[in-house]
Amino acid sequence: MKILICNVGSTSLKYKLFDMDANGGNTFPAAEKVLATGKAERVGTEKSVFQHNGGELTQEHFPTHREAIMKMMENLLADTITSMDEIACVGFKVVHAKGVTGVQYLTEDVLSAMADFNSVAPAHNPPYIAAIRQFRELMPKTPLIGSFETGFHATMPPEAYLYSIPVELSKKYALRRYGFHGASHEYVTGFVSADMKNENIRLVSCHLGGSGSLAAVKNGKCMDTTLGLSLQCGVMHNNRIGDIDPYVLVYMMRDLGMDLDEVCKTLEKKSGFLGMSGVSGDLRDVELAAEEGNEDAKNAIASYATA
Amino acid sequence: MKILICNVGSTSLKYKLFDMDANGGNTFPAAEKVLATGKAERVGTEKSVFQHNGGELTQEHFPTHREAIMKMMENLLADTITSMDEIACVGFKVVHAKGVTGVQYLTEDVLSAMADFNSVAPAHNPPYIAAIRQFRELMPKTPLIGSFETGFHATMPPEAYLYSIPVELSKKYALRRYGFHGASHEYVTGFVSADMKNENIRLVSCHLGGSGSLAAVKNGKCMDTTLGLSLQCGVMHNNRIGDIDPYVLVYMMRDLGMDLDEVCKTLEKKSGFLGMSGVSGDLRDVELAAEEGNEDAKNAIASYATA
Repeated sequence: MKILICNVGSTSLKYKLFDMDANGGNTFPAAEKVLATGKAERVGTEKSVFQHNGGELTQEHFPTHREAIMKMMENLLADTITSMDEIACVGFKVVHAKGVTGVQYLTEDVLSAMADFNSVAPAHNPPYIAAIRQFRELMPKTPLIGSFETGFHATMPPEAYLYSIPVELSKKYALRRYGFHGASHEYVTGFVSADMKNENIRLVSCHLGGSGSLAAVKNGKCMDTTLGLSLQCGVMHNNRIGDIDPYVLVYMMRDLGMDLDEVCKTLEKKSGFLGMSGVSGDLRDVELAAEEGNEDAKNAIASYATA
Repeated sequence: MKILICNVGSTSLKYKLFDMDANGGNTFPAAEKVLATGKAERVGTEKSVFQHNGGELTQEHFPTHREAIMKMMENLLADTITSMDEIACVGFKVVHAKGVTGVQYLTEDVLSAMADFNSVAPAHNPPYIAAIRQFRELMPKTPLIGSFETGFHATMPPEAYLYSIPVELSKKYALRRYGFHGASHEYVTGFVSADMKNENIRLVSCHLGGSGSLAAVKNGKCMDTTLGLSLQCGVMHNNRIGDIDPYVLVYMMRDLGMDLDEVCKTLEKKSGFLGMSGVSGDLRDVELAAEEGNEDAKNAIASYATA
């Protein structure tokens, strides 16, 4: 069975075509074989680029993900498969949907549930929804399947996932801690359990990258995690805030006269390592600046290390 | 030396007049003597009440704190002191001011700095400022001194007090973690150190009441605390939220159409134990409901216990 896995960013598309029967069995981690790989970047600009199977990086013009998807199909048909029908399904690591989690067929209902959380996953949901609709148009017969990042955290108990807002709001609007990076935390949990030959362990799984979260895991199940309703909390991220007092927003709006869009832009794009250090959202750059004596960079690193 | 200590609430005034020379020394805790005590409640209503030195609770009409202060002065002059000049100063446990902390003369500059943080301490600063101005009018010669709740936390290192918002906003507008209940955490630290005859201890001081916070203390100094820029974070409170993802506010405004005032009212008055349990902001009531099987009440208690 061949499965195409696509990672959709706001300006990118990365893909890998897997043959899942390569090892004929179910070892962990899976020993599937990669048949093809590629990427489109700077989608939505006139300076798009494309690369397939490690070949030459070509200049392209992809006004939307649609053109990038077509380029990917063209390349897969040229050197890897003879018909799109060979692809059993396309898999996506989708982020967030209201009332939906786990592994799901990406039906219009599910896309609509994703759109319900656009405002809390503004960098992730809108481009994913648009791209998935374009996949459906271009590959109408192929099942599109999403593995929601929130899935692994669905086992959290109420005391971990409930916020102290009025309970009727929590229930009516599904406002709760969800957690993200579920595929990563699940993989780490499975790997450590397999390595220790023991499924009944307690571990803190740390997913630390441009976007970061920690998960407390007990007997294979997530008990708590640092990300919440949105991805703008927990440990700080490359350019997104970590945990803050929500009245920082209130102060920005009431006293500094910022409107909600401006506040959100600040918290989603100008904060985290980039905002604290004033240097960069890339920890390597921040470390260099700290070595050169930049106090803000030092504080950003110390804050991350003690979070 | 006689010091009058006044605790100002939005609808109340409590006072104690101390003789600080009662034990002639500096023991810890201080062995000062209480000369008089009293309270005014339901200030601002037509059903105000007043009590002095444990006497009869009388029906009054205090339209503002001014009338309550006058009633207090009248009673102190009737049975405890012969002139207001005997009072060396009036002490207040003030909450929050921008760029000001520790123990301060409550000058107009300091009151103005308090007003700068009205929006993050809406339940505390406005009534305090109004009442202190009334004290100044009624006792123009007596120094008014405030001990800010943030004082004990001023020793926190930058990695503990900085948020991951843009550093220029943190600096320009003094947006940082401040911490509150400083007098309480300082007292606990001093008491434990004295009791253990060791000032170089590490302790977590827990101030748990209608309003709650924890402080991490090392060698007598605060290193971190759960409250932040405002009192709407950390462990949840009787009717105020504890830590939440700030995008809960964003969702309320963008998707639920609530305006900022409505959001703030929800987070400041309808959340915490009251909101989560749907029963009461008083833990005793919530515990009773939990014993009777109320799941929301059980979740609120479990959430508080595992915070």
